[in-house]
Amino acid sequence: MPRGPVFLLTDFGPGPYPGLMKAVILSIAPRAAIMDLTHDVAPQDVAEGAFHLRCAFPYLPKGSLVVAVVDPGVGTDRRAVCVDAGDVLAVGPDNGLLSAIPRESRRAVREIRERRFLLSGPSPTFHGRDVFAPAAAHLARGLDPAQLGPPAGSIVELPSGPGAVRSVDRFGNLVTDLDARRVPAGAVVSVGRRRVGPLRRTYADVPEGALVALAGSAGTVEIAVRNGSAARVLGAGRGDRVTVRRKP
Amino acid sequence: MPRGPVFLLTDFGPGPYPGLMKAVILSIAPRAAIMDLTHDVAPQDVAEGAFHLRCAFPYLPKGSLVVAVVDPGVGTDRRAVCVDAGDVLAVGPDNGLLSAIPRESRRAVREIRERRFLLSGPSPTFHGRDVFAPAAAHLARGLDPAQLGPPAGSIVELPSGPGAVRSVDRFGNLVTDLDARRVPAGAVVSVGRRRVGPLRRTYADVPEGALVALAGSAGTVEIAVRNGSAARVLGAGRGDRVTVRRKP
Amino acid sequence: MPRGPVFLLTDFGPGPYPGLMKAVILSIAPRAAIMDLTHDVAPQDVAEGAFHLRCAFPYLPKGSLVVAVVDPGVGTDRRAVCVDAGDVLAVGPDNGLLSAIPRESRRAVREIRERRFLLSGPSPTFHGRDVFAPAAAHLARGLDPAQLGPPAGSIVELPSGPGAVRSVDRFGNLVTDLDARRVPAGAVVSVGRRRVGPLRRTYADVPEGALVALAGSAGTVEIAVRNGSAARVLGAGRGDRVTVRRKP
Repeated sequence: MPRGPVFLLTDFGPGPYPGLMKAVILSIAPRAAIMDLTHDVAPQDVAEGAFHLRCAFPYLPKGSLVVAVVDPGVGTDRRAVCVDAGDVLAVGPDNGLLSAIPRESRRAVREIRERRFLLSGPSPTFHGRDVFAPAAAHLARGLDPAQLGPPAGSIVELPSGPGAVRSVDRFGNLVTDLDARRVPAGAVVSVGRRRVGPLRRTYADVPEGALVALAGSAGTVEIAVRNGSAARVLGAGRGDRVTVRRKP
Repeated sequence: MPRGPVFLLTDFGPGPYPGLMKAVILSIAPRAAIMDLTHDVAPQDVAEGAFHLRCAFPYLPKGSLVVAVVDPGVGTDRRAVCVDAGDVLAVGPDNGLLSAIPRESRRAVREIRERRFLLSGPSPTFHGRDVFAPAAAHLARGLDPAQLGPPAGSIVELPSGPGAVRSVDRFGNLVTDLDARRVPAGAVVSVGRRRVGPLRRTYADVPEGALVALAGSAGTVEIAVRNGSAARVLGAGRGDRVTVRRKP
Repeated sequence: MPRGPVFLLTDFGPGPYPGLMKAVILSIAPRAAIMDLTHDVAPQDVAEGAFHLRCAFPYLPKGSLVVAVVDPGVGTDRRAVCVDAGDVLAVGPDNGLLSAIPRESRRAVREIRERRFLLSGPSPTFHGRDVFAPAAAHLARGLDPAQLGPPAGSIVELPSGPGAVRSVDRFGNLVTDLDARRVPAGAVVSVGRRRVGPLRRTYADVPEGALVALAGSAGTVEIAVRNGSAARVLGAGRGDRVTVRRKP
C-alpha cells in the first residue's frame, strides 16, 4: 500500500540539494506528495534538527514518511536507519536525529543497506540524495521497511540536557526544549544570567518591546520580545542555557 | 466539492512553521495540493503581506484557497476570518491583511469560530497551525464557509497611503504600491528626496548600473538599478515615500 | 499525454515570484506537480544557474519539465526557447542557461512565440510568470513543443572556462565545475593561490577544521572545511579560479 506524504527535514538551506532529493524521489515514486518541513536547521546542528522533528511529530498525517538529514558524519561508518513508528516511518543518519521520535512510538529500527533500494555508486558526501531519498521513495511505493536491511537494534539517543535554547525562529524568539508544563506557576525563567520573568500566555500580555517568557507553540518555554527580537535584545542563541527558579 | 490548490502566504520565513501548517492541512485534507506563495514577508509587516496578496490575487486559479498569516496580534481578541471571494476563499487574521482582496470580489465574510474545525486547545501564539490551517483544510474538503462561524460584517481595511515602497525584492528592486497607469507620460518619480526619472519600459532601457523607474510586474511603479540593487544604491526600503511630479 | 513534474530553477529567492509562477501554472494545468529545484541562484548569475541545471539533469524523472529563469536580459530581444531533450523539456531565456543540457540529449529547440500559450500583455520584466510558466503549463498538459513557435536553430552556449567556483553552498563548500575524474591521483588542487591538497574521499578524511578537496556530489571538485566553511576560511567565492597541478 502506498504511503505518504513525504516530509523533508534537513540543514541544506535554500540551495539545490532538497530539489535533487525531490527529483530522486519522484523518479522512483512518481505520485508521491513531497512537502518541506524545513531546510533551515542550522548547518550540522543535529540537536536543532531533532528538536524540530520532535515538535512536528504529533502533527504528521498517518502514513507520513520523514526524510531527516542533518548529517555531519556523512561518509563515515555511521549507520543509515529507518525507524518504524507505526503511523510514521522515518529515515536518516543514526546520529541522534531520529531519537526525536518518542520511544513509545518506535516499533522497529532497520539499517538501510540493501543496495537495490539506493542509487548506485552513492556519493560519500550526499546521502540525502543517494541513500535516504531513494529509500523513502521505495517506502512511499509500499516497500516493507524490513526489506531495507537487518534489524538495527537501538539507535543513538541525544542526551536530554538540563534545558537550552534549541532554535531561534525568524522573529528572534528563543525556542527552548524545556517542557512548559513543568514550570511552576510564578517561577522565574532566565536565559544565561538574564532574568526574563514568569510564564505569560501570549506576546500581547506584555507591552511592545518588553521581554516575555511563555509556553510556545511547541509546548516548550519560549523567550520573546513583543514585536521585537529576543535573540538580539539578549544576545542569545542556540545552545544557551535556560533555567527556572521558584520565587523564594 | 473539493477546493484547491491551497496557497500559503506568511511572514514565517524558512523555518518549520509553514511545514507544520502543511502537516495539519494534509492530516485533514490528504489530497490537497499545497503551494507556497511566499513566507518571506518581513516579520509582522501586514502591509507587505497585503501587497503580495493583492498582486497574486489576479493570478490565482479558480477554486484556490489562501491561508494568509501575518499576525502580530495573535493571542489577542483580533478576529479570525474567512473572506469568500467567489473563485477564491481566503482565511487569516482580521488585521487588514485580507483587505488586499478587492472589495468588488468579496461576497461574504465569516468569523472562524467553530471549534470542531480547529485544532483542540489552540496555541495562543500559532494560529497558522491551529486555526487557519485546519479551517482551510476543511474548506479544501468542500466545507461551506458559512459553517465556520457567524457573519463577520466588514473586515479591517488597511489605509491606502499616498504611495510607498511596499517590498524590496531579492534583486534590490523597490516595489511600490503606486499604480503605474496613473503616472503621466514624462512625469518624474522620486523615492524620498531622490529623483529617479520618468517611467521606462524595462531594465535594459538604461545603462548598466543606472537607476530606472518602470511599471513593475505588479502593475505598480518599481525602482531598480540595472544589474544592481536600488535598495543599496538609494539606501531605501519598505515604508519609504514615493512621489510623482509632472515636469514643469 | 500529460507531462510532469514541473521543476522550477530561478534566481528569484524566497519572495513571491516563484509562487506567482505556480499560480499561473496551476491555472492552466491544475493537476501539475510543481517542485522547486532551487530559487537560490545568485541574482543574475547565469553560470551558476546553468551549473545547477547541469548537476540536476541526470536525476530528473522522465517526463519532467524544467522552467529555468535567470534572466538579466528580460525585456530585451533575447529569445525565449524550449529545448526538447527527449525525456525532459526545458523552457527559459536563450542566454546560455539551457546550454547546461548536454548536447547529446538535445533533440530540437523551438522559440517560444505563440501568444495563445502565453499570458496576454506580458510584463517586460517578469517572463517567468508571463511567458515561461504558461508555456510550461501547456507542455504539462501535453502540448507538442513544436506548437510553441518556429525552430530556433542553435542556442547560446556558455563558454566552458578553465575551472572555477560555480556555487557556494550553505555549508560554505566551494563547488567547482572541474570534473573530478580528470584530476590525476595525488595532483594538488588550489583555489586562487591557496593550495588545498589532493582529492580525498569525504569530509571525514581530514581533522575537524581542516581544508579538504574532494569529488563532490556533482562529480566535480569541491573544496570544503570539515565542519566549517571553506568560503570563509579562504575568503573565496563564485568565479574564483581553481587549478590542479601534478606533483613534481
